[in-house]
Amino acid sequence: MKAKDMMDKDFIYATANNHIEEISIKMENAKRFTTPVLDENMKLIGWVTSFDITKGLRENKKLISEIMSPKEDVKYIRENDPSRLAVLETSKSRLISIPVLNNDDVVTGVIRSFEIVDTLSALYEVKVEKLYVAMDKQLKGITWDELMEASAITFKRNTGEEIKPEEYEKKIKNSTFGEAIWATGGLERFFAGLIAVGELVIARRIGRVKK
Amino acid sequence: MKAKDMMDKDFIYATANNHIEEISIKMENAKRFTTPVLDENMKLIGWVTSFDITKGLRENKKLISEIMSPKEDVKYIRENDPSRLAVLETSKSRLISIPVLNNDDVVTGVIRSFEIVDTLSALYEVKVEKLYVAMDKQLKGITWDELMEASAITFKRNTGEEIKPEEYEKKIKNSTFGEAIWATGGLERFFAGLIAVGELVIARRIGRVKK
Repeated sequence: MKAKDMMDKDFIYATANNHIEEISIKMENAKRFTTPVLDENMKLIGWVTSFDITKGLRENKKLISEIMSPKEDVKYIRENDPSRLAVLETSKSRLISIPVLNNDDVVTGVIRSFEIVDTLSALYEVKVEKLYVAMDKQLKGITWDELMEASAITFKRNTGEEIKPEEYEKKIKNSTFGEAIWATGGLERFFAGLIAVGELVIARRIGRVKK
Repeated sequence: MKAKDMMDKDFIYATANNHIEEISIKMENAKRFTTPVLDENMKLIGWVTSFDITKGLRENKKLISEIMSPKEDVKYIRENDPSRLAVLETSKSRLISIPVLNNDDVVTGVIRSFEIVDTLSALYEVKVEKLYVAMDKQLKGITWDELMEASAITFKRNTGEEIKPEEYEKKIKNSTFGEAIWATGGLERFFAGLIAVGELVIARRIGRVKK
């Protein structure tokens, strides 16, 4: 995923000659704590936060140019940068949003912490059943019943909790990946569990052939 | 993980009788766009955002009590709520931060989007090698060489790219879980790959025994 796939293209902005009061109202209405400052070609020239606004209002400043951070102090990323970079930059620099620029320095979008949280949390909210159904399609040699049997055994080994394959199937209908990581005690254990499932399926199959 | 494990206990707050100017300076210095409003027992009575501050300053309001949202309009979570709830609430309601209350309605912390991004992104930034080493410890019957061999074969099946076990080992030294999901084409494929690794290890072992 690239920055341009994650960014909000529908962003507010200010120009250097805008009045502070006018931009404060714009930011309140749009519920934005930050805004890029652009020139007439939509190129980035500065950045304004609500902190600049409150300070400017208290000190009776008039224009955005008097309160904005200049471009050289603004963190930004490029459209084709990996979206991971937006996550790392906002996290490292404690930013609430970061402007996205094309190669001509034109601002084409803004990535906000909301977009990041949405994207990151989507992973945790994936239903385990959905993952299993997709895995089942990938693993052409394994039947659904084999997958449930092996998973129930692995679950018991990991948690000590006795569970029937049908119960396991019911369990994953409602649980999410985030809960599954939590229940198995971490990502590594969850992954090790998947490998163990694969081992078990084959071992059990061979066991049956021998009988 | 519970809300109390994720929250920042070192938060700023306002009282109803504080002057708006005073709190605006406090928020600027602490770089906080929001602050809870507490009574003398640290119980939540309201919430103030930078938007309330800028509007209050423009309209010459004096006290926090004149501009705060009342408690009934404030979203909050409890200390023992799962931290997932903080993620869901902030994401759903587009909040930048959410106060955490104990059972006496005392505010004991604040969860901000930064803490959420940090926690969520930690998962993506986990080095694949670290996961493998931890998996290797869990999977007592499998040797590291078997794990690398089976992973290299699975990788080839998934991506079409020929890779030797030693090259695979080098590859995972520097790649993260986020990159691995991306490279294999999604979470389901990545998981299916792990099950396939388990299958392969056992199948290859039996193959060798037969020879």
